[in-house]
Amino acid sequence: MNYLPSFKRYRSISLALLLLTSPSLTTQAAEDNCFAMNKPKVKDLTSDNIVDLLGGIYEHSQWVAQELVTAHDPSSFNSISELAATMKSIVDGASREQKMDLLLKHPDLCQKIEQRKKLTADSQAEQSKAGLSDLTAEELELFNKLNDEYKAKFGFPFILAVRNASKYTVLSALAGRVKHTVEKEFVDALAQVHKIAWMRLLDKIDYSDAKGFLTCHVLDTANGIPAEKMRITLHRLSEPAGLVGEFLTNDDGRLEGGPALKGGDQFMVGEYEWTFYVADYFASKGNFVSGTPFLNTIPLRFGIDNPDDHYHVPLLVSPWGFSTYRGS
Amino acid sequence: MNYLPSFKRYRSISLALLLLTSPSLTTQAAEDNCFAMNKPKVKDLTSDNIVDLLGGIYEHSQWVAQELVTAHDPSSFNSISELAATMKSIVDGASREQKMDLLLKHPDLCQKIEQRKKLTADSQAEQSKAGLSDLTAEELELFNKLNDEYKAKFGFPFILAVRNASKYTVLSALAGRVKHTVEKEFVDALAQVHKIAWMRLLDKIDYSDAKGFLTCHVLDTANGIPAEKMRITLHRLSEPAGLVGEFLTNDDGRLEGGPALKGGDQFMVGEYEWTFYVADYFASKGNFVSGTPFLNTIPLRFGIDNPDDHYHVPLLVSPWGFSTYRGS
Amino acid sequence: MNYLPSFKRYRSISLALLLLTSPSLTTQAAEDNCFAMNKPKVKDLTSDNIVDLLGGIYEHSQWVAQELVTAHDPSSFNSISELAATMKSIVDGASREQKMDLLLKHPDLCQKIEQRKKLTADSQAEQSKAGLSDLTAEELELFNKLNDEYKAKFGFPFILAVRNASKYTVLSALAGRVKHTVEKEFVDALAQVHKIAWMRLLDKIDYSDAKGFLTCHVLDTANGIPAEKMRITLHRLSEPAGLVGEFLTNDDGRLEGGPALKGGDQFMVGEYEWTFYVADYFASKGNFVSGTPFLNTIPLRFGIDNPDDHYHVPLLVSPWGFSTYRGS
Amino acid sequence: MNYLPSFKRYRSISLALLLLTSPSLTTQAAEDNCFAMNKPKVKDLTSDNIVDLLGGIYEHSQWVAQELVTAHDPSSFNSISELAATMKSIVDGASREQKMDLLLKHPDLCQKIEQRKKLTADSQAEQSKAGLSDLTAEELELFNKLNDEYKAKFGFPFILAVRNASKYTVLSALAGRVKHTVEKEFVDALAQVHKIAWMRLLDKIDYSDAKGFLTCHVLDTANGIPAEKMRITLHRLSEPAGLVGEFLTNDDGRLEGGPALKGGDQFMVGEYEWTFYVADYFASKGNFVSGTPFLNTIPLRFGIDNPDDHYHVPLLVSPWGFSTYRGS
Repeated sequence: MNYLPSFKRYRSISLALLLLTSPSLTTQAAEDNCFAMNKPKVKDLTSDNIVDLLGGIYEHSQWVAQELVTAHDPSSFNSISELAATMKSIVDGASREQKMDLLLKHPDLCQKIEQRKKLTADSQAEQSKAGLSDLTAEELELFNKLNDEYKAKFGFPFILAVRNASKYTVLSALAGRVKHTVEKEFVDALAQVHKIAWMRLLDKIDYSDAKGFLTCHVLDTANGIPAEKMRITLHRLSEPAGLVGEFLTNDDGRLEGGPALKGGDQFMVGEYEWTFYVADYFASKGNFVSGTPFLNTIPLRFGIDNPDDHYHVPLLVSPWGFSTYRGS
Repeated sequence: MNYLPSFKRYRSISLALLLLTSPSLTTQAAEDNCFAMNKPKVKDLTSDNIVDLLGGIYEHSQWVAQELVTAHDPSSFNSISELAATMKSIVDGASREQKMDLLLKHPDLCQKIEQRKKLTADSQAEQSKAGLSDLTAEELELFNKLNDEYKAKFGFPFILAVRNASKYTVLSALAGRVKHTVEKEFVDALAQVHKIAWMRLLDKIDYSDAKGFLTCHVLDTANGIPAEKMRITLHRLSEPAGLVGEFLTNDDGRLEGGPALKGGDQFMVGEYEWTFYVADYFASKGNFVSGTPFLNTIPLRFGIDNPDDHYHVPLLVSPWGFSTYRGS
Repeated sequence: MNYLPSFKRYRSISLALLLLTSPSLTTQAAEDNCFAMNKPKVKDLTSDNIVDLLGGIYEHSQWVAQELVTAHDPSSFNSISELAATMKSIVDGASREQKMDLLLKHPDLCQKIEQRKKLTADSQAEQSKAGLSDLTAEELELFNKLNDEYKAKFGFPFILAVRNASKYTVLSALAGRVKHTVEKEFVDALAQVHKIAWMRLLDKIDYSDAKGFLTCHVLDTANGIPAEKMRITLHRLSEPAGLVGEFLTNDDGRLEGGPALKGGDQFMVGEYEWTFYVADYFASKGNFVSGTPFLNTIPLRFGIDNPDDHYHVPLLVSPWGFSTYRGS
Repeated sequence: MNYLPSFKRYRSISLALLLLTSPSLTTQAAEDNCFAMNKPKVKDLTSDNIVDLLGGIYEHSQWVAQELVTAHDPSSFNSISELAATMKSIVDGASREQKMDLLLKHPDLCQKIEQRKKLTADSQAEQSKAGLSDLTAEELELFNKLNDEYKAKFGFPFILAVRNASKYTVLSALAGRVKHTVEKEFVDALAQVHKIAWMRLLDKIDYSDAKGFLTCHVLDTANGIPAEKMRITLHRLSEPAGLVGEFLTNDDGRLEGGPALKGGDQFMVGEYEWTFYVADYFASKGNFVSGTPFLNTIPLRFGIDNPDDHYHVPLLVSPWGFSTYRGS
């Protein structure tokens, strides 16, 4: 049995550490506390609570949640991704005017600080992490210029799902998108709106009953065989951070004991990192390994965005190169 | 200009931190202090100092260094890798009996602690990091069994270049190699001996005049173009550890300003890590990026073993997968 | 010197064979005869000939070519891709109504055969290769159903740049795109229109003065080195088809003698195929190769679409796997 | 149901064509006719027929087959690969002198034509395909020089499993291996001997009861999903050559209907080629595809060497690059 002390145990430790080192959880709180008691599950949604709960998912556009109640039976949703898809389809099926109105409801990223008070609370939290306050004078000038150009060309404010985005992201996205045709940017701006809605939904719903899971597979491309008995660790990088599993591959190169993470309170949205002990493995195969191996331990960082999905994150590796991809 | 404060500056800071936090440098000292004043460069080698300096490179086999002086003009070596290759060719050209003798000069990894005193100082330092003292009773029993089997089958002790190797490496290498044919393992054991000699040589010689350098290239395989304006950082993980550069790719996907590391006191043997800001990049391209991107920042860890070589360590990346390899 | 008998020579032979075996060049003629005497080069374009020549590039929409003459100096275009980009920008900058009108000018792929006479000659040639006449009764029913649904939802006919497309392509593209939002499909339909315009432009202009070229690079990922002395051949698969070069890699894994194809009458739009003799190479390296190697000769098929571009088409290969990508 | 007319049917057609077009099957016969009536299966081996049948597998070294009878129960072998592994282990366990004797039993590739009559029939057939008769005067001189050097250094003749090898293979393998150490080349020469034995064994045994099979999987790395409804064909390139299957991927990107080839008379040693219709697929996904797509149909050529193994040969593909590997 190679699956080490369970995720739950590690998570408890991490949470404890988190509480010790982060007395004021502030803006991270919603994300960290994603399985808190007071959040409803999808199956807890009713015609009575759905608009209160999800009315703010689409910016100042409660009509989406209202339409959800009107046209759908809340008890018919089986998962958070199905719920999100339904809300998305309501927006996608709306008229061009309604979509434009939705875009226009979004705040201008460039508005001055004193104007931020008028934003919805959700938007404020997200913008506070964008690093826009760190813009140099030059960057700010460029940003204002591009932002003005954007609004003049498209007729709606620049929208970017900004959680975790730096000022570099904002500037490069703005510079890239201002070149779009009017029709293309309308489509892309709506995609950003859906992305923001999805992130907000994940904060509102307890998705611990989701069906997603995480698997791995290691192929040795130098020898053309599955990589047997390779050690792998898995860390969660998002809060609550910490080691969540230690594994050994079996003779098919897969993890002993099934998925690395599966449902319950294990398979949480966030950032993770495998570490593969590849030099150890190749040493056991008799492949020559130089004094300081080109590849010794390989960190492989990836994000889990949809708690209902299967994430297969494999490694194809020789002593001189590797690749990974989202598999199935 | 995107190349941040020079390597030298970061290295100074890192060294300072190192001195503050590691008052007793102990076994790491030789590695950390690799450019110290008192080490000769390859061009400083003479018939008079070569045997003293390099006599211990091959375990208890001063004859290799002596042959080096006898058959070669010390002033003819242009690089540390050329020097190593010449010493290797002396061993490779020796008789089977001499090679067997060289193998037999190596200590048995399994010898009891009280016997370690008889080992050369170099071997002691390397074994102390092997984690053999952490073997559980079960692992120790397995290790002893395999080690006995190995010696009985091959007639020489199990040799593994063990710096940075864990007990897992030792056990899996032993278990893998004990299955070899006698002839194959003779070849592989000698490869380990050469590897140990190389690591020792790097500790004895100041190679700051070596010609190696490090380059990068980022290809966007989702759009079939070089990845322009992607932010990349480079950290050194081995001591002296720290940030050594921050870069932006140009319109050919390469680093502005040439190699990331080049000669002098920059291009040191050791472990490094690129970090690529790929989600920022794809956001600027209009590729859809999910709330928690599958790939956000990609760490890419690699080792530099030969200070005379060009290391090209590129990234091929789409929003859903990536690969790397030692290029040219 | 490893670059075998020149491209021109092989091409002559191929053309001779082509003439012998294909007495009636029919619909392929325009493509095959791409460098014929009577086509103008970009630099031959004038205000007088441009509308006649390029008026049909965008379906029944001469206004694009007229605007080209009005707003641009025909002598200012340096390349066919620059010319195409300018025509595209004229369309992209037009009003939504003009774009919709352009979409509506396109024939309905589903129109009955008797209606085809009304189509422009260009469209007819392209549809004749779509294999739509090979639709089974079932497929035809599905096609009609999807096509009706498409027109009802989006208000313009289904447009697909169909040269070389089979009935499978048409059906799957239709089935995929009918699910788009109205805004997204408007954008994608216009992209198809631009693609058709580009293919037509390539047929109208002699681009033998274009600056593109083709290069290669082979990396051995099993040994972490450039693959030296690997034999490679290059065939052109589009007409005029035939062997166009035979190469050997140098010690950096690149082709001796520079680009495989470069300008003049060498670097033509069309489909090509490298063949890499990888088992031979690995045999020379001492890598074990099984009786029937997993990889012996690797065919690598790729298309050149833009005669002004650099196409770098490398191979990363071990005895057990390989990858390629459009590089730079 | 997407699995087209069965392999057996295509194979029959191919065989018929083969008989029509190749009246003298000559040296190819043994390979082509691999499931002929008169070959025994592994389970048909007895103490009485084993030496007659397999005595020539190792060149002039009947002792290997004799030891097989003496030390093993012929009825205990479950597969051809197990049989081969046992014979290999007999050789591997022999003394160094016996191994050297086995190497010395092999003919010198350089012997003059008049001397070839003395070779065993098996060796003659293999050398006749090596293209050695096509050596130019210069190449012949180089070959003789390297061959003399080889024999002088190692004391045994140069051995290369030459079926399907060209003169380029022979020359590059010889040039590469002559640089080895004596001990390394002894190991590599024996590996060649085992490889020859394996190819001979496949010619002697009817392995139609082997358990191997062939599978596929297509991942779309541009969209991070399995590639659904991609058309794939499979051709056998070795004789009997021909189309052996046509497939469509399911919603997990795998072949509808299970393995593409499985046991019986389907899964034969030899060379195969997938063709993937990737441009059709990406057109259906709405990915932009240029006029002449960079990747349209991808041929993927691979060899099946062991009829007892599972061959998983997947494709990871974006519109701008792809990779494959021997999976599991």
